[in-house]
Amino acid sequence: MFSHDSRLQYPVRVDTPGPGYARMLQQAIGGIEGEIRVAMQYFFQAMGNRAPNTKYRDMLMHTATEEFGHIEMLATAVALNLESAPTKAQESGAKDAIVGAVMGGENPRHMLEGMLHRHILSTGMAAYPANCDGVPFDMSHIYASGNLAADMYCNVAAESTGRVLAVRLFEATSDAGMKDMWSFLIARDTMHQQQWLAVIEELGGHQKVLPIPNSFDQSQEKTEFSYNFFATGDATAPALEGRWTQGASLDGKGQFSVHQNAPMGEAPNLGPARPDSGAQTEQIG
Amino acid sequence: MFSHDSRLQYPVRVDTPGPGYARMLQQAIGGIEGEIRVAMQYFFQAMGNRAPNTKYRDMLMHTATEEFGHIEMLATAVALNLESAPTKAQESGAKDAIVGAVMGGENPRHMLEGMLHRHILSTGMAAYPANCDGVPFDMSHIYASGNLAADMYCNVAAESTGRVLAVRLFEATSDAGMKDMWSFLIARDTMHQQQWLAVIEELGGHQKVLPIPNSFDQSQEKTEFSYNFFATGDATAPALEGRWTQGASLDGKGQFSVHQNAPMGEAPNLGPARPDSGAQTEQIG
Amino acid sequence: MFSHDSRLQYPVRVDTPGPGYARMLQQAIGGIEGEIRVAMQYFFQAMGNRAPNTKYRDMLMHTATEEFGHIEMLATAVALNLESAPTKAQESGAKDAIVGAVMGGENPRHMLEGMLHRHILSTGMAAYPANCDGVPFDMSHIYASGNLAADMYCNVAAESTGRVLAVRLFEATSDAGMKDMWSFLIARDTMHQQQWLAVIEELGGHQKVLPIPNSFDQSQEKTEFSYNFFATGDATAPALEGRWTQGASLDGKGQFSVHQNAPMGEAPNLGPARPDSGAQTEQIG
Amino acid sequence: MFSHDSRLQYPVRVDTPGPGYARMLQQAIGGIEGEIRVAMQYFFQAMGNRAPNTKYRDMLMHTATEEFGHIEMLATAVALNLESAPTKAQESGAKDAIVGAVMGGENPRHMLEGMLHRHILSTGMAAYPANCDGVPFDMSHIYASGNLAADMYCNVAAESTGRVLAVRLFEATSDAGMKDMWSFLIARDTMHQQQWLAVIEELGGHQKVLPIPNSFDQSQEKTEFSYNFFATGDATAPALEGRWTQGASLDGKGQFSVHQNAPMGEAPNLGPARPDSGAQTEQIG
Amino acid sequence: MFSHDSRLQYPVRVDTPGPGYARMLQQAIGGIEGEIRVAMQYFFQAMGNRAPNTKYRDMLMHTATEEFGHIEMLATAVALNLESAPTKAQESGAKDAIVGAVMGGENPRHMLEGMLHRHILSTGMAAYPANCDGVPFDMSHIYASGNLAADMYCNVAAESTGRVLAVRLFEATSDAGMKDMWSFLIARDTMHQQQWLAVIEELGGHQKVLPIPNSFDQSQEKTEFSYNFFATGDATAPALEGRWTQGASLDGKGQFSVHQNAPMGEAPNLGPARPDSGAQTEQIG
Amino acid sequence: MFSHDSRLQYPVRVDTPGPGYARMLQQAIGGIEGEIRVAMQYFFQAMGNRAPNTKYRDMLMHTATEEFGHIEMLATAVALNLESAPTKAQESGAKDAIVGAVMGGENPRHMLEGMLHRHILSTGMAAYPANCDGVPFDMSHIYASGNLAADMYCNVAAESTGRVLAVRLFEATSDAGMKDMWSFLIARDTMHQQQWLAVIEELGGHQKVLPIPNSFDQSQEKTEFSYNFFATGDATAPALEGRWTQGASLDGKGQFSVHQNAPMGEAPNLGPARPDSGAQTEQIG
Repeated sequence: MFSHDSRLQYPVRVDTPGPGYARMLQQAIGGIEGEIRVAMQYFFQAMGNRAPNTKYRDMLMHTATEEFGHIEMLATAVALNLESAPTKAQESGAKDAIVGAVMGGENPRHMLEGMLHRHILSTGMAAYPANCDGVPFDMSHIYASGNLAADMYCNVAAESTGRVLAVRLFEATSDAGMKDMWSFLIARDTMHQQQWLAVIEELGGHQKVLPIPNSFDQSQEKTEFSYNFFATGDATAPALEGRWTQGASLDGKGQFSVHQNAPMGEAPNLGPARPDSGAQTEQIG
Repeated sequence: MFSHDSRLQYPVRVDTPGPGYARMLQQAIGGIEGEIRVAMQYFFQAMGNRAPNTKYRDMLMHTATEEFGHIEMLATAVALNLESAPTKAQESGAKDAIVGAVMGGENPRHMLEGMLHRHILSTGMAAYPANCDGVPFDMSHIYASGNLAADMYCNVAAESTGRVLAVRLFEATSDAGMKDMWSFLIARDTMHQQQWLAVIEELGGHQKVLPIPNSFDQSQEKTEFSYNFFATGDATAPALEGRWTQGASLDGKGQFSVHQNAPMGEAPNLGPARPDSGAQTEQIG
Repeated sequence: MFSHDSRLQYPVRVDTPGPGYARMLQQAIGGIEGEIRVAMQYFFQAMGNRAPNTKYRDMLMHTATEEFGHIEMLATAVALNLESAPTKAQESGAKDAIVGAVMGGENPRHMLEGMLHRHILSTGMAAYPANCDGVPFDMSHIYASGNLAADMYCNVAAESTGRVLAVRLFEATSDAGMKDMWSFLIARDTMHQQQWLAVIEELGGHQKVLPIPNSFDQSQEKTEFSYNFFATGDATAPALEGRWTQGASLDGKGQFSVHQNAPMGEAPNLGPARPDSGAQTEQIG
Repeated sequence: MFSHDSRLQYPVRVDTPGPGYARMLQQAIGGIEGEIRVAMQYFFQAMGNRAPNTKYRDMLMHTATEEFGHIEMLATAVALNLESAPTKAQESGAKDAIVGAVMGGENPRHMLEGMLHRHILSTGMAAYPANCDGVPFDMSHIYASGNLAADMYCNVAAESTGRVLAVRLFEATSDAGMKDMWSFLIARDTMHQQQWLAVIEELGGHQKVLPIPNSFDQSQEKTEFSYNFFATGDATAPALEGRWTQGASLDGKGQFSVHQNAPMGEAPNLGPARPDSGAQTEQIG
Repeated sequence: MFSHDSRLQYPVRVDTPGPGYARMLQQAIGGIEGEIRVAMQYFFQAMGNRAPNTKYRDMLMHTATEEFGHIEMLATAVALNLESAPTKAQESGAKDAIVGAVMGGENPRHMLEGMLHRHILSTGMAAYPANCDGVPFDMSHIYASGNLAADMYCNVAAESTGRVLAVRLFEATSDAGMKDMWSFLIARDTMHQQQWLAVIEELGGHQKVLPIPNSFDQSQEKTEFSYNFFATGDATAPALEGRWTQGASLDGKGQFSVHQNAPMGEAPNLGPARPDSGAQTEQIG
Repeated sequence: MFSHDSRLQYPVRVDTPGPGYARMLQQAIGGIEGEIRVAMQYFFQAMGNRAPNTKYRDMLMHTATEEFGHIEMLATAVALNLESAPTKAQESGAKDAIVGAVMGGENPRHMLEGMLHRHILSTGMAAYPANCDGVPFDMSHIYASGNLAADMYCNVAAESTGRVLAVRLFEATSDAGMKDMWSFLIARDTMHQQQWLAVIEELGGHQKVLPIPNSFDQSQEKTEFSYNFFATGDATAPALEGRWTQGASLDGKGQFSVHQNAPMGEAPNLGPARPDSGAQTEQIG
């Protein structure tokens, strides 16, 4: 069960509203790298976590709860950045004429309004759960597999792309208030990257966690293909050298090698279509 | 540029066709944990990889190319499992009557056909790029951030959920041909988990890679919040203890601690709506 | 800012787990009539509420917070209903043979597994943010218009379809635990229908609220068409009689009447395509 | 069965074509507040309407038919607004150089073209069934529940957000032709809001219609929770006062009150994962 | 402008309601091969048709209007097939026990209900605009390019997959009423395939219509690659022989030949990432 | 099985990077007229092709493989066009002030950045699998019906809209490198239109191929409706004359005629709702 405090987790201040920046911020709300995604992902991972104890479930729910508060901060930032946005068509004056002439008769204000259309037309100058292109967030991005280690790596992925986005949004503004907000949110992303990797470490690191799921008996897989890199260029292509082509595997159970890819199977043979299947006559044997 | 060999990378054999299993296999083609996703993800990561050399770009493209061959194997497996599926309504005979009676008059064959509808109605007994619920694959699941380390963790996440799915599909069938195919694909997932983590190791591991992106000057983030776990239950909740609440952080740059969450900001203050914004009169100041 | 209590708002008990019912419950989580929708809708309406005071914003956030707790209850109910679901293919025994024979060789267990595929394959027996068909929830269903009265009616609509769904799910089960949970959630839907309509009443009811938005000067609309019902059948069709064809309009500003629809405009005239626009030569004037 | 007259329901005139405005108009065609939505929503509600008579079914179909004509008007308006849009890159002349220099080398014409890309690239200067961000209309927004009162409130919601959008589009243009078209469409939205609410009144208003569905025996719900507002802030938060916290409920069946939210259930207890479920070993009991 | 006659274009009769078949019918309403798609596709093609005269625009609108009536027929068929569907859980009696035992404890009725969930839960036994998997129709499938010939081929494609689907649905039922409905709709698909191809013939057939768009000056394309088939297997693969590898091209402007694919370009060279772009340090030159 | 050569099929050169053009190019990657679509469509058609021989399957896979190389070319073109895009907010200088003033205080750079947001924020200046509006490619656009002739027409449709798009992108740029790339890709589209139509010719042309599927016994359709055009305007509308209203049908099996549409069926009669179906009381008989 949740409760709510009307104050924000961290102050959100906009010194100079910028409608264009409001649109960019949407990526951090409804983009796949954004806050709805992590809040809901941790929530559903917590809800589905099956284990002899609730340790990781609890951890996940604490951070899910924190992330709901981040959506709140960003939605506030969007609304504040929209304070100065235009809603009304204005008569073209002298000023418009200059740029309008340059642009072949198009009123530049229309371009600006075009970029803001959804904020103007659909929300009355407020945030909405879509990315900076207006594509609504799609809940299929909530990765919750029922496997603890897989979930942790999904979360590292989310917080890595999340902090990359946050850094780009930090760089994209010169507003001191916005930069201050990001300096907090970037710090939280730093911690969250740590947090999920710390679970991996606590579970024994690469040697015990891999391969995921570690509950599958590896004698049932073709282990002759478990630690070799398949090269798919032609055989004369330059050698590929890296940590993944030689030496012990990270789980300590094999040796990396390189395998030049070649067909082991035959061409598929499906046979003719059946008479009643809506095929053309020519496809029927 | 690509070329194609009509033979499959690894043999695909179905001993006893099972239309129900064909549907399950769709998850490994068009599900978010499936092969279209990894093939396209590695492809777009390769295409966008900017770096002083092409080492990682090449590695990504090799594996993308391998994965296109896996889609081919799975599509073949779907078509072979559908060989015995019904397309034609049949007159109810004695047999149908038994189960039909049990089910309140509904012909059980309808249920079976219902489950197969898309394979019957849309493809004429062939694979399609959707998951086992028929939800088409949506390319927003192609994670390619332009940051090498973030991309590697996205790939570990994909191969982890991918191998979890593969194991579940291995368990869900008793067909020896299908199990053999999975024993190969599971092995490849084992390698691919290794491969992307090996890049992280080659780049210096947690200490050099984290936080992602490592090109951002951490003095610009609020480092007092970079290594503490925010507890969002009430202050009387039991202590949370784990690798992530104490000791040195994984990047060696901080000490983990626990912070009881509390508002640092104020309630948002957006002010009244503008007269021309489509709000109700009562919202206008 | 949010906080979380690990106990549920109301007890969730499943007496006899039913995997098929788990699937039905998904509609109440990730369906358009479900709890993610209302939680997020009230949250975003609150975040975007502009007004001289925060009265309605606060009310919206209280109920958003309550609804997050309902998602938690339902996700628990799904997981509990899945306790008995099969994950492993079993050798066909005598029992399977009976029904299998009836169904033309298809193992009925496959059908059951097919229906459960996503819960088996993607989540390891847990809830996910999609509807009962596995279609992921799409955040475009978060209606938050920036107009208080429009938002209230969106909420009445959500709670009306929500309670209809809840009643159907109550009817679809004979499990006493599940029925008890629904008897609580149905009651909450009763209140929430009241609550949003009570705002309309507080704002002055139909006479003051309508037409929405009430801040638009009606002298700018063609009021000769504001209160008449357009009949689009042919002129000989039977007369339509109802509250909306005669008498005073609900806002007290007009009289209802019936208007037989007829074209007032001309056929559209777009003219030929331009030479460089990718049209066929024949389309170019 | 439908028939068609090639003349428009109401004249559509564009005095000064504006490509930017064409893009805005897309929201009224393919946005969730737009005309495809209402046309199809009323159509499917009519088709699914079960009742002893066809009175409401007929009404719904009349208005669905009217709305198809509104899509036609708006599609015409889009095409006319695109008459002056550029399709061809031009050599940069002196004029472009001015603004181009300001913008760091980017040709401003590219910006304009960027905003118009879909109209240029996909349709050859015509309307398409997507919103102003180019997001295609998704038919999950057709709300048709099988419950007459729920459907009516869904329709009030649609016409309320629809008229809000129409008013914003009226304000966003200074073109006299476009304003005239909106003055007609806004009037129709006025009527349609009335119309659906008139059905509620005809059915007996709040007292008879609520709670929806009114065919469910309320003795089966926990009526002790049917009329109280759940406060989810902490107990020291300021009192919430409104029509919904005190006095008789709108259906006359209860008294409003405030309830401070507190857990009535326990923490969920899911137990360990099964050995064959693809979980990590540590999750298996 | 449209008008409506409450009678159906062609009689719709269901002799034995079949809920499973209702679900299959959804593919013909909201599937990509279905009636919403063609109705809306012809409508938007008509609306965007630019040409010196309105001949093709009028033809398109006539058929769009016909197709709206087909949606109506199919929605009626769905509702009639659902007449006998169960809505209420029943106590397990002896009958259920037999099949239930076979299926490991699962009540088979749950399976049936599972398959019907959306019709039960969301619509109250009525059609909805989604396919047979419950995936909502997505308006991005409305192909309307602004090029008349391209549009005609899009329509042939739609009517070809549409008639294939119709034939499969004809085969899947033994209900005489349903078969009669399909015998009409299949005939209409026959005509519509003819109709769009007849426009191609009227425009001069392959020789005048191709390549589409025919308004592009072919001297601006690399005509040395305009009529040869690129073979992408290795050079030793068996020769490919067909109408497309030799002889005159269909437009009479070239000769078909086979070209063994080989790279003409270099490997892409993107160079390092910029310092402020959120990349890893190692990617920055 | 696939292999890869790191060199491009054809050279990709950008003389003057243009971020706005990069965005336009996205339509050719992830738009419905783009290269992912054709590559995947031919791939899945090949995988599902059932016939006595593999002739068409092989042809489809050759061209699928070619198209994967086209995605590679376009992704390279996007990355090269983004070389000059801004990532960093700059202090407003004198230059910005001029245009900023014109636009009412909005920094024009924000507009430019807004248009580039996804390339800046999500990919670090690289291509992604979405269209020019940022709408991700949705795999439901992979048309593969299991009917060879239907698939061929789907492919003609794809290559027709594809070449229309390519021509528009050719026209939209003045960059010589980009024009050279398009002159190659347009030529390939020319060939691919030919190729699929050549299959139709090889199969016997209209007379043998139509109606699709040709394996359905036409005596089971209502042939009295198979060759007449349904006019849906009123009976006084001007006569429609074209190749499709008179003369022999293209398949030689009928004569075209015109039929004035009129209802042959009755109004649908669904009867009342059931008591337990969540309807309003008034809907229950």
